[in-house]
Amino acid sequence: MKATILTIGNEILKGRTVNTNLAHIGRVLTYAGYEVFRALVVKDTLDDISWGIKSALSFSDFIVTSGGLGPTFDDMTVESISKALGIELEINGKAFAELETRYKERRLDFTEARMKMARLPKGADAIINPVGSAPGVMLRYEGKTILMLPGVPEEMKALLDIVLDKIKVPGRSYYEETATLQGIMESSLAPLIIREMKAGNGKIYIKSHPGLSETNERILEVEISSSDSTDMLAKENVKRAMENIRRDYRSYIGK
Amino acid sequence: MKATILTIGNEILKGRTVNTNLAHIGRVLTYAGYEVFRALVVKDTLDDISWGIKSALSFSDFIVTSGGLGPTFDDMTVESISKALGIELEINGKAFAELETRYKERRLDFTEARMKMARLPKGADAIINPVGSAPGVMLRYEGKTILMLPGVPEEMKALLDIVLDKIKVPGRSYYEETATLQGIMESSLAPLIIREMKAGNGKIYIKSHPGLSETNERILEVEISSSDSTDMLAKENVKRAMENIRRDYRSYIGK
Repeated sequence: MKATILTIGNEILKGRTVNTNLAHIGRVLTYAGYEVFRALVVKDTLDDISWGIKSALSFSDFIVTSGGLGPTFDDMTVESISKALGIELEINGKAFAELETRYKERRLDFTEARMKMARLPKGADAIINPVGSAPGVMLRYEGKTILMLPGVPEEMKALLDIVLDKIKVPGRSYYEETATLQGIMESSLAPLIIREMKAGNGKIYIKSHPGLSETNERILEVEISSSDSTDMLAKENVKRAMENIRRDYRSYIGK
Repeated sequence: MKATILTIGNEILKGRTVNTNLAHIGRVLTYAGYEVFRALVVKDTLDDISWGIKSALSFSDFIVTSGGLGPTFDDMTVESISKALGIELEINGKAFAELETRYKERRLDFTEARMKMARLPKGADAIINPVGSAPGVMLRYEGKTILMLPGVPEEMKALLDIVLDKIKVPGRSYYEETATLQGIMESSLAPLIIREMKAGNGKIYIKSHPGLSETNERILEVEISSSDSTDMLAKENVKRAMENIRRDYRSYIGK
């Protein structure tokens, strides 16, 4: 099951904000059994969000968007996606009731800008936001699912948590382990990685990441992961490959 | 001048690595006068990188890629981009000489996996990497420019620094300022933002970011930015709008 993550916001493109939302959503979806296939970052405009959602729908089954659900003029996600897909907006009863109550409690007017957060695509589910105002939105479209989350990280995380059980892919488990090796270059490890991936018959994925340790020594992180039908199988695949890599590494550095 | 940033690597999609490279490159390009238009993240495969570069070329003039320049099997950026654009690979004399010297100095074999880093698209410029092995690549293609940088952040930063003067957009200056406000909600500030943006005639961009202060109080960051033909004009645009916003904010909170 292929997933695409669409992050909306100029601040990500300008580098004002680091896209930690992508990392969090990517992590959650990977462990929920998805192949996180691509990620797109677009500006806060109708045209760009439309391009993003249409592109994502053309190559994935599940799309998670982050950003653009708030009350300001540049919060255009819901409107843009609805227009792009030709779905009408309507006041969502659940979202409206929740927002109305909250603003009343805080003795604030339920202004047009605030009411915008209750105007959702026809047929969409509102997910009440336990941290902030803007509700999340779950929309089914031509057999695919679009989950719209806010950009504020605390709100995005809380809403993703709420829907997690609903979005898990049945019969898909993911497992990964990372080893940190010293004294071996990436180019020396490369042939071992190819051998183990071949032996894994498409169920094993290995990647090396060169980097620096805290004491500024060159290290090589070797990440082995597997997706399989059960937790146990995925784990066994990883453990077997890791053992082989470690054995060859020890013999390479002469220990 | 529109720029697209293409990040290559499964580890970003799986959320193992936060895409700090996007933020750094986005920041540098913004201040260099570009409109950072979109960002794409793709897996380390020929098909995905091809899709990424072709998409980016279809909507931007300058493309910066990050990742996939190293010696391992999944470092496929150069090969994939060359194939996608129909450009032959050839041994780049500058890259070859540098790598050969370095491996000789370290008494390491110049293996096939290592030599791969010197095999660049015909006509491309190699940018010698002062921090790691893989050279950066600058390629002109049908009036557009593709800059390929490594994924290791220290290497990416060093190479981007080296080419910075060459890639700056002449006659485009960028300036921004951020104010942190308390005691006002995003939905209350929204009409003021719209007013100032209208007054700015397309040269002023204002965005509010709700968040939490270190003491866990709700704050609102208001970012005002401007692109104009000189540093002075961009700065004046921002200062004027900031003054108006601050004045209205003070009157809103009654100070």
